[in-house]
Amino acid sequence: MIIVTGHMRIAPEVLDALRPDARKTIEATRAEKGCILYAWAEDLVEPGLIRIVERWEDWASLDAHGKAPHMDAWRALLADVEIMGREVIAHEAGEERGL
Amino acid sequence: MIIVTGHMRIAPEVLDALRPDARKTIEATRAEKGCILYAWAEDLVEPGLIRIVERWEDWASLDAHGKAPHMDAWRALLADVEIMGREVIAHEAGEERGL
Repeated sequence: MIIVTGHMRIAPEVLDALRPDARKTIEATRAEKGCILYAWAEDLVEPGLIRIVERWEDWASLDAHGKAPHMDAWRALLADVEIMGREVIAHEAGEERGL
Repeated sequence: MIIVTGHMRIAPEVLDALRPDARKTIEATRAEKGCILYAWAEDLVEPGLIRIVERWEDWASLDAHGKAPHMDAWRALLADVEIMGREVIAHEAGEERGL
């Protein structure tokens, strides 16, 4: 399994405007092959800071996600948005423990 | 590195009431030894659904976090809250790729 964690920082009012398109992108991604978990969430401490958490079956699924048409549409939308910071990292999952 | 991902589902109005204590718990945790990233965030699609994302230096740091006094205080607070679902999993991080 591949775990993706990270964040993207935008102005809170911009995030509000993006919500309908974000929802569409999230729903389309959840229907992709190999997607186990895909979520964007607004940080409880810092408005406008989007936390990203994903689980994918394998690297191939994650690679295919990056090339999906709905991701092209989402990136085109973001091209007009000021991103004030972004870091997203994928890790292959090793030993697992429930908490 | 250890990656923690998961969620906790509570009523949106309960989440709003918990925000000040959540902030305190998050800030205390970020000051812990071995904490690289610690965030709770409200799902963009489902209000009240808290997404959890954490990065820790090692299992020992994560274990120590579970025993921290501020986590006892947080759990005591949650004892009076209806949790409608919770799943939190820790994984040892293998191969890493930036996205």
